[in-house]
Amino acid sequence: MHPEPFARLPTPPYYAVIFSAQRTDIDNGYGATAERMVELARLQPGFLGVESVRGEDGFGITVAYWDSEDAIRAWRQHAEHTAARERGRAEWYRHFELRIARVERAYGWDRGDQAAQVGG
Amino acid sequence: MHPEPFARLPTPPYYAVIFSAQRTDIDNGYGATAERMVELARLQPGFLGVESVRGEDGFGITVAYWDSEDAIRAWRQHAEHTAARERGRAEWYRHFELRIARVERAYGWDRGDQAAQVGG
Repeated sequence: MHPEPFARLPTPPYYAVIFSAQRTDIDNGYGATAERMVELARLQPGFLGVESVRGEDGFGITVAYWDSEDAIRAWRQHAEHTAARERGRAEWYRHFELRIARVERAYGWDRGDQAAQVGG
Repeated sequence: MHPEPFARLPTPPYYAVIFSAQRTDIDNGYGATAERMVELARLQPGFLGVESVRGEDGFGITVAYWDSEDAIRAWRQHAEHTAARERGRAEWYRHFELRIARVERAYGWDRGDQAAQVGG
C-alpha cells in the first residue's frame, strides 16, 4: 500500500529539492498558484513526485523529487515557475531555505502491509 | 536574519534525513516523545539542525540534518531512539517514508535582509 499524500518513488538514487518556507499573511492568489505549480511540475520531464505540508503557523516544507539535476535546472528555468518565484519573494514568503540533495537510500513502512520497501 | 523554525546549517555538503509520516489517531505520549527525540538528537555528535511541520490531517515532514552518514548511523543505533521508533510502528504511525540524502547545494532568502546566503 502506498497512500496519498506520499510520493511513490523509484529506487534511489534520485534528487530531492527541499523547500522550507514561512508564509506572509498575504494570500492574493497563493493557493491557486501553489496548486498550479504542482500541476505544472508533474508535467515536466524527470519529475518523480512531491510531498508537502504547511502548519497553522504558516511554516511549511515541500520536498519535490526529480530524476536528475538537469531536470531540476530545467524546472527552475521554466517561465511560469520563474514568475511564480518572483511573486513568492514579492508577496508570499517571509523567509525560505532551499536545499538540493541526492537521495542515496530510502525505506518505507505501512501499517497495513507491515512490509518494508527498501531501496538503494 | 535566520528565524526559527529554520535550521541554521553550514555550507554543504552535509546529509538530510527526510522523514514523512502519517500519524494514527493515537496520542499516548507521542508529543512528549517527539520533543524528547529532538532534544536528544541535538546532543548527538554531528547533529546540525532540524525542521519539522505537521498538518491538521496528521501528515508531517521532518528533515534532520547531520554532518555525516556515520552520525546518522550512530543516532539510528541510539537505544532511546530505537525504542521510540518501535513505539512509532506499534502505535503512532500509519505510514512513513524515510529518505537519506546528501545535500549538495543550499540557498536561503529572507524578506528582512533581502540578502541571499548561497552555499555549496
